[in-house]
Amino acid sequence: MSSHGIVLFGHGARDPRWAEPFERLAARLRGSGAPAPHVSLAFLELMTPSLDTAVAAQVAAGCTRITVVPVFFGQGGHVRRDLPQLVDACRAAHPNVEIRCATAVGEDDGVLDAIARYCIDQLGRNA
Amino acid sequence: MSSHGIVLFGHGARDPRWAEPFERLAARLRGSGAPAPHVSLAFLELMTPSLDTAVAAQVAAGCTRITVVPVFFGQGGHVRRDLPQLVDACRAAHPNVEIRCATAVGEDDGVLDAIARYCIDQLGRNA
Repeated sequence: MSSHGIVLFGHGARDPRWAEPFERLAARLRGSGAPAPHVSLAFLELMTPSLDTAVAAQVAAGCTRITVVPVFFGQGGHVRRDLPQLVDACRAAHPNVEIRCATAVGEDDGVLDAIARYCIDQLGRNA
Repeated sequence: MSSHGIVLFGHGARDPRWAEPFERLAARLRGSGAPAPHVSLAFLELMTPSLDTAVAAQVAAGCTRITVVPVFFGQGGHVRRDLPQLVDACRAAHPNVEIRCATAVGEDDGVLDAIARYCIDQLGRNA
């Protein structure tokens, strides 16, 4: 059993439908064959669970390494200021667990390429 | 010269660095050879230009068809409620211009696949 968890960290919104792509992303990762059977969502605000709750659940499930991936386009205050504080609190609560934080997904070239392809497809549909 | 414009519509943030992936995305689209030499950014709040300003600039540049792509992961209140109102106002201001609005990029399977790949890569780096 893998002890590696991944937490997809999003902003959160009032409309529950906002979370649908995050749930589809989590389902993809669970079925990807990647070494991460533990995939959780967590939100900064307006939605639950919070990061500390999601991390605590992964630790309770036996995870000894957790990677937090900010599902944000840009790295503004939420990713540069709020998230590190939340991650530090999780590390303090679980000193024996290795908790790492990735760069925001929107900074990844592969993600930007996919968004660019989507935009171009939209132009074609508009013709 | 193509008369087709694309507006990448994002939320906006206080930190100017937040917009960097949007600027990289716009640069990719401008260099993609897609039929869209006119690529603009627009923001809901905290950053400029607003959607109406970006659309007006594209119209002034000769665009007769404009596709607005919401660079959001989920479709919450901003995309479902705020954006249609902004687009309707743009249509009213430019009745001879065809203004279409795409689904949020985060709903696209190709974008979700790219994010999933990025997440899996992060796990590998953590090993």
